Amino acid sequence: MLAKDNITAAERDGCRSHGLFRLPGYCLALERGKASGDSLPEVKSVAPSCVLADARGGFSTPACLAGHPLLVEKAKACGVAVLLIRHALHFAALWQDVEPLAAKHGLVAMAFLNTKAFVAHWPGGLHPLYGTNPMAFACPRRGADGLSEEPFVFDQATSMMARGDMSLAARDGETIPPMAAIDKHGQPTTDPAAGLEGAQLPMAGHKGTSLALMVELLAASFTGDAFAYEAAEEDSATPTQHGEMIIAIDPERCTAGGGRDAFLNRVEALFKMVETEAKTAEAEGRSMRLPSQRRWAARKRAQEGFEIDEALLNRCRALCE
Amino acid sequence: MLAKDNITAAERDGCRSHGLFRLPGYCLALERGKASGDSLPEVKSVAPSCVLADARGGFSTPACLAGHPLLVEKAKACGVAVLLIRHALHFAALWQDVEPLAAKHGLVAMAFLNTKAFVAHWPGGLHPLYGTNPMAFACPRRGADGLSEEPFVFDQATSMMARGDMSLAARDGETIPPMAAIDKHGQPTTDPAAGLEGAQLPMAGHKGTSLALMVELLAASFTGDAFAYEAAEEDSATPTQHGEMIIAIDPERCTAGGGRDAFLNRVEALFKMVETEAKTAEAEGRSMRLPSQRRWAARKRAQEGFEIDEALLNRCRALCE
Repeated sequence: MLAKDNITAAERDGCRSHGLFRLPGYCLALERGKASGDSLPEVKSVAPSCVLADARGGFSTPACLAGHPLLVEKAKACGVAVLLIRHALHFAALWQDVEPLAAKHGLVAMAFLNTKAFVAHWPGGLHPLYGTNPMAFACPRRGADGLSEEPFVFDQATSMMARGDMSLAARDGETIPPMAAIDKHGQPTTDPAAGLEGAQLPMAGHKGTSLALMVELLAASFTGDAFAYEAAEEDSATPTQHGEMIIAIDPERCTAGGGRDAFLNRVEALFKMVETEAKTAEAEGRSMRLPSQRRWAARKRAQEGFEIDEALLNRCRALCE
Repeated sequence: MLAKDNITAAERDGCRSHGLFRLPGYCLALERGKASGDSLPEVKSVAPSCVLADARGGFSTPACLAGHPLLVEKAKACGVAVLLIRHALHFAALWQDVEPLAAKHGLVAMAFLNTKAFVAHWPGGLHPLYGTNPMAFACPRRGADGLSEEPFVFDQATSMMARGDMSLAARDGETIPPMAAIDKHGQPTTDPAAGLEGAQLPMAGHKGTSLALMVELLAASFTGDAFAYEAAEEDSATPTQHGEMIIAIDPERCTAGGGRDAFLNRVEALFKMVETEAKTAEAEGRSMRLPSQRRWAARKRAQEGFEIDEALLNRCRALCE
């Protein structure tokens, strides 16, 4: 799987922000020599439960996918394993780094990735210090024939808002929610323009600061890649180089008894409860959304084909020439 | 280390909510036969990187501490390891389950624990479905003589507010922040009494729902212990039985090169940046709090002794008789 597959899958699943929209940025990074288009990732075992994938200046997706087989092998042998990805340029949807581990291999997986600095420390911060630092999580579910192709997956920034949404609000003269950003004096603001000049805020105030710090430590300290503040000057229209950590746990081996089968029984019991309540909610006019549900619905619809914005398509076609 | 040591350490560090305040609840659980006071935890290796500690109906602290040595051994041998704790009654401060792994053994550690149901699914939930589901994290720091006794540690619920704070607000006729709770009709409320009748909300809306679900899955699905909704009827004045997962990663083995030394160099670089900015903030009258700083300050002050609420002390003395 290459960067193009990550783009295609994101577009198919309705995640436009990581779909074709990103293609010009990928191309620009290659054109400027920021990314290497032909270096092959190098994968090696560094400990019985640890794998290192060195992207050698290429995009993150090929390095991540190159690391998956050894990660899966180690998780299944030891019960848990870690994949470190370094020297990679990141621009891809993070959920794709964990979804196949759950859907194809029955593993529970977590991914942590830092980004360039956009987010201030809360309380009291004034400048962007942390990345929007997403976390992704995938947990296998039982399908008709073993594992479901639709595991439980989420992928979310530890910042309160997505950067892109704040820019759109500024363009359209809208306000942003309280506690999504501070102005350049450190005061919370609902004015997106003032927020872009100041800094974004972590989700849930000081709790999000803790999570942002955790992601910096997991993603960058182990790999030796840049912290968010060290990448502050990087151009965010192109992929930026950061570290990533993936933890994969095998419920077959990491078990209090009963292995994967007992695990899936419990997982399905929980989701049965959640989905029953969601049906009641639906009937009463409340929508009880679950992460990844919109993505599965979009994926089903995409079997009949999906529309692509014409201007964007033309821009991509122009890039090919 | 026993439950009493967890209580003493919490009281010493100024974490009153998990200090002596909890002693009557522990005693009540023993008196009612809910907890076993004399069953010894059973620790076994279930996979090269996985340890299972069965508390056999006792409190969680002895089981966790009994599992630590094998967890540390496996993390150091394999690079990463998991400890599952089951059949334990939980009433203790979670940060104590990870702090020694960082401070004494130089490991990065994460703990996930579910609780009884207090928190609704957001958006659209109406009833308590998830626990307040705390996560704790510890990362070693460099000390004068190797490892610092004051690693980076946080321990936070995935709910927006602590249950106790909502009860206090109701008692004192105060309001609670928006999006901390819903009333029994599912509408967000700032009235704590209405919130106690309805349900708490996760931190950061739908993002906290994802985290709450992740903690349910990590803590309860692997151990086979109760999900929050299955423990809804449990009395929260006494410890409740839930699952816990701890993941420990050894930066010496799980490394892109340079081991623990290179890791600690990077960690200190990040905290130097954060602490420099915190000093500037302090000088400008802003307080840039870091998790665990208040705890270290309280611990230092406690070397000279610390005060205990007299009424609480008398209540505890009465329990001894």
